[in-house]
Amino acid sequence: MQDLEFTVERGKLYMLQCRTGKRTPAATFKIAVDHATKPLLTKAEANRLVKKGYLPKRYAAAAIKPVITKEEAIQRIKQADIERLFYPIIDPDFDSKSLSTRALGVGINAVPGAAAGQIVLTAPTAESWAAQGKKVILVRKETSPEDVGGMHVAQGILTATGGKTSHAAVVARGWGKCCVVGCSALKIDEHAETVSINGKTLKQGDYLTLDGSEGTIYDGEVPLVTPTLPQEYYTLMKWCDERRRLLVRTNADTPYDAENAVKMGAEGIGLCRTEHMFFDTEERRLAIQRMIVADNENDRRKALDTLLPFQRQDFIGIFEAMNGRPVTVRLVDPPLHEFVPHTEEAQRELADNIGVAFEHIANRVEQLHESNPMLGHRGCRLAITYPEILDMQVRAIIEAAVECRRRNIKVAPEIMIPLCIDAKELQILADRTREVAESVLKEAGVRVKYLVGTMIETPRAALTAGKVAEVADFFSFGTNDLTQTVMALSRDDAGRFLPVYVDQKKTGIFAADPFQTLDRDGVGMLVKHAIENGRGTKKDLKIGICGEHGGDPDSVKFCHGAGMNYVSCSPYRVPIARLAAAQAVIEEGATRRTAGRRPSKARAAATKTKKTAKKLAKKVARKSAKKPAPKAKKSKKKKK
Amino acid sequence: MQDLEFTVERGKLYMLQCRTGKRTPAATFKIAVDHATKPLLTKAEANRLVKKGYLPKRYAAAAIKPVITKEEAIQRIKQADIERLFYPIIDPDFDSKSLSTRALGVGINAVPGAAAGQIVLTAPTAESWAAQGKKVILVRKETSPEDVGGMHVAQGILTATGGKTSHAAVVARGWGKCCVVGCSALKIDEHAETVSINGKTLKQGDYLTLDGSEGTIYDGEVPLVTPTLPQEYYTLMKWCDERRRLLVRTNADTPYDAENAVKMGAEGIGLCRTEHMFFDTEERRLAIQRMIVADNENDRRKALDTLLPFQRQDFIGIFEAMNGRPVTVRLVDPPLHEFVPHTEEAQRELADNIGVAFEHIANRVEQLHESNPMLGHRGCRLAITYPEILDMQVRAIIEAAVECRRRNIKVAPEIMIPLCIDAKELQILADRTREVAESVLKEAGVRVKYLVGTMIETPRAALTAGKVAEVADFFSFGTNDLTQTVMALSRDDAGRFLPVYVDQKKTGIFAADPFQTLDRDGVGMLVKHAIENGRGTKKDLKIGICGEHGGDPDSVKFCHGAGMNYVSCSPYRVPIARLAAAQAVIEEGATRRTAGRRPSKARAAATKTKKTAKKLAKKVARKSAKKPAPKAKKSKKKKK
Repeated sequence: MQDLEFTVERGKLYMLQCRTGKRTPAATFKIAVDHATKPLLTKAEANRLVKKGYLPKRYAAAAIKPVITKEEAIQRIKQADIERLFYPIIDPDFDSKSLSTRALGVGINAVPGAAAGQIVLTAPTAESWAAQGKKVILVRKETSPEDVGGMHVAQGILTATGGKTSHAAVVARGWGKCCVVGCSALKIDEHAETVSINGKTLKQGDYLTLDGSEGTIYDGEVPLVTPTLPQEYYTLMKWCDERRRLLVRTNADTPYDAENAVKMGAEGIGLCRTEHMFFDTEERRLAIQRMIVADNENDRRKALDTLLPFQRQDFIGIFEAMNGRPVTVRLVDPPLHEFVPHTEEAQRELADNIGVAFEHIANRVEQLHESNPMLGHRGCRLAITYPEILDMQVRAIIEAAVECRRRNIKVAPEIMIPLCIDAKELQILADRTREVAESVLKEAGVRVKYLVGTMIETPRAALTAGKVAEVADFFSFGTNDLTQTVMALSRDDAGRFLPVYVDQKKTGIFAADPFQTLDRDGVGMLVKHAIENGRGTKKDLKIGICGEHGGDPDSVKFCHGAGMNYVSCSPYRVPIARLAAAQAVIEEGATRRTAGRRPSKARAAATKTKKTAKKLAKKVARKSAKKPAPKAKKSKKKKK
Repeated sequence: MQDLEFTVERGKLYMLQCRTGKRTPAATFKIAVDHATKPLLTKAEANRLVKKGYLPKRYAAAAIKPVITKEEAIQRIKQADIERLFYPIIDPDFDSKSLSTRALGVGINAVPGAAAGQIVLTAPTAESWAAQGKKVILVRKETSPEDVGGMHVAQGILTATGGKTSHAAVVARGWGKCCVVGCSALKIDEHAETVSINGKTLKQGDYLTLDGSEGTIYDGEVPLVTPTLPQEYYTLMKWCDERRRLLVRTNADTPYDAENAVKMGAEGIGLCRTEHMFFDTEERRLAIQRMIVADNENDRRKALDTLLPFQRQDFIGIFEAMNGRPVTVRLVDPPLHEFVPHTEEAQRELADNIGVAFEHIANRVEQLHESNPMLGHRGCRLAITYPEILDMQVRAIIEAAVECRRRNIKVAPEIMIPLCIDAKELQILADRTREVAESVLKEAGVRVKYLVGTMIETPRAALTAGKVAEVADFFSFGTNDLTQTVMALSRDDAGRFLPVYVDQKKTGIFAADPFQTLDRDGVGMLVKHAIENGRGTKKDLKIGICGEHGGDPDSVKFCHGAGMNYVSCSPYRVPIARLAAAQAVIEEGATRRTAGRRPSKARAAATKTKKTAKKLAKKVARKSAKKPAPKAKKSKKKKK
């Protein structure tokens, strides 16, 4: 769409300049769909213009047909067009000068959209203020699982440290909640209850506005608007769904997220993180903490018994929301240190609450501290050392499934074991999982089909995938952690130097942030190796991805090319993934046509879609070959 | 060697029992060398015994030849036989009952040998007491580079946390200094200046004895003895050197270490860690700390200028000690956070010393803190963000080389860039390295040959080795960090769960600790991939290993099989590596002979050795085929 400037002087038309026209996201969809479905002119209009001499007759036939194909319409839509459809934005009518004077500083734009509210400095304050109906912005140095309650009720989240895949960013992205992280100019004084950004000091309770798309922080409350979805969005997404081969699942931890994701087009849950559930209420928090500070299996089992009904109820809610769609539940993953209080005050409170000596708590917390928690006692290592945690979680999942089956709700649970590094390790845990599951089903006298698989998120799991596949029903690539380990790059710390690596002027070492767009040369090579070797062992191995990359267009296209069955991403990224998966099919067709190569081994299920894709490819290729031609002819003629 | 019990009753000989005889390490070498060089009997003795009827005539010919081949002698020596030759041990004559009553507890046996001395709780105390001629044992929760001075003067080191590859263990191993780590029963009260182990409390200044081979901690001062090297050790090592193809280098950071390693048979330095030099004196420590807390390049350069002469002098000393043997110098590797003081007191002292505000220091230290320092801002990432550090270090290395050349000392510096993850990253740094080096050489008007290479210690460097080799003159596998990243396993934290993984009764997931013995299925696969792809790009690429595995027999054999040029290990492990490298050749020959396979592509340099190896292989195979045969025949005959 072009924005033209022209003038007519003494009967002569002068074209002054033209540029690509800005449009609202709704207009982008409308233009794309209109161009693919409606002719520029009706037959009557065309005839009239031809008669009047305004339209050369040779263009009349083209003018009464749609301008582009549906595939071209799909190719016209970009990630940002979808994002901008969903997130609140700063009112475009708000005075831009006034806005720029309010800018306090810039952080990393972790989750797009805008948010405005009163500054709160702790998660409990956020919760109590929100309960009073206040809109709050949670401002923290960094966030941890203990803050999840406060994060959930906040309009937006601002942190001084971290990058796009730090705790705050990942959790906020799951909710589509505005989030700015790594604002190094931000200083927080918890004691004085103030924050300062580049010298400007604000108190708790003062208003702040965040623009998560740009990463900008504004003083005061700037007016926001939320766009409404145009009909053309649904039309275009339908075209995408008809074309794509990759399924699109979502990362969702609650029935609320799950329902929301289904509305966004999710076809299942690819990652349900069970540990977020541990912090939902005080009661749950205490139970998990009691389990962690226990110094024998018996006490741990007792604490786990109190958690079981909560977890079961959570899974029932999620299974209901997903109504028969597959739900991949990941067993507990983070190091236990993340679940315990770290200040003396909070430790004393916990000691009082669960009737244990403060020193015991303090010692245990100290003992759980790790130099590199990312590479520490977490993931399935917890289940190897404390198998009773696995027992409780598997029981909760299968009991929830049984309960749903009894109520005639379809369920398809997939139990996922995280951070596997070895086939024998997985064997031990998968055997135990199936043992617990079978005993629950036998007790209940109900049959439920379930899968037991693993995340591939360590180089060793990927390297030994052929053996790991002997034990796993499915693979799900955890490309966040795989990127961290393959590149020896902590996502929480990379903010200090990664910007230099992706700065094209300074070094240009990487074309993009590898935590946003999958690193094809390194991580991608391992992913392909693992898929090839995994399917070498088990031809029909179900394979997906559940890292942040599952919602990044370029990475989705890689996943398509690598032969995955599905991608999984946060609910708000589901439409982006659906679009990218369709674009992958279209681009694949175009490439094949151009290169004249034979398509890779056909998968039976995809045959029909593929035929369509081939046809499309021909069309696209024809179109793009033809387009420049008329112009060239025309100008030549003129010169003659 | 068998220990036999027999009795003669009524003229009849009864064999009661037999068991493998214990012997001193010196005896092990003597028996092996004697058996391979001396006949059991002289001709005259044999004749006499045959005449008397004590020796059947058919055995006389065998009795006057050596019993075993030199290859068999080499195969008879084990890692522990060599270790026990070098380290002080608890006097075997010391009353064993009295010893066992002194046992206080057990930690992880990080470095073998024994040590006795007075307990000191801080590195400065260790230094001042040692200066007064006292023998001290440094007892710490864990050690950091700041403690290196105190560790160096201590007889032995004991820590409450950590594993075999934690800071204390790695540094102590380099010195062959007795070290027990991860003693969880050890509680340190720095305030009261006491330690308690399993309830027994000792004060600073009390005596303690460590047995680093067993990991046992004894109360009081137990007498130690240091064995002397038998002549047969030198003979057997010579046989090893004649046979092995792998070169053996050492990890050494000081002229003292370097000289010691040459005595142990090192043929070069495979890893010289420049950062240990930063803590040698107060002056250096201040200079590096001043550099770190500087907030602009200019101040950093000034601080680096004061470090330059120190580093240059260090390198001159090392080049002198190595006298033309190759010296691989690794540019600074650890995260800067390791170099700054972490207590308020020490920060205030630093602030006073360098004339900077305390708050500035405290802020900078806080800023440098990382969630996962192992995956953080370290290695060549430091040189990407602060290239002036690289400039100073390269200048120091090349200026030292120039100075040595002028004094007619041969030098072969190899500059090694750590933690590379990408070819372009390495290109930027290798270009800068060569630029600085060339300008120094041009200034000096001296020609020195030097290499610029990289460590392969991240999965991504290994995966993209084909490209990395375009830029690197050599690869050195840093298998400590490669193991950490491939397995997502922090060596500092793995102590909590890795024991369960290697416990054959509990899980048996791994056959050995992957930080001690290279994980062939995971890490090994990547190493092979990198060698294949690196040599695919550069046929003669020099390849070595400088992780802890370079001194582990099984890992050395892997390195041999993978086609490396050298292994590098701590000085005290050099003879172990020489032995294992020779055993690898012998075992390879035996395997080939047995399997009847064709040898892999011959490398020109190794042809002669290989021919010898083949001959040996035949001999070994013949021997081992024959040995059981006579017995079998004999018994059959008897039965007949």
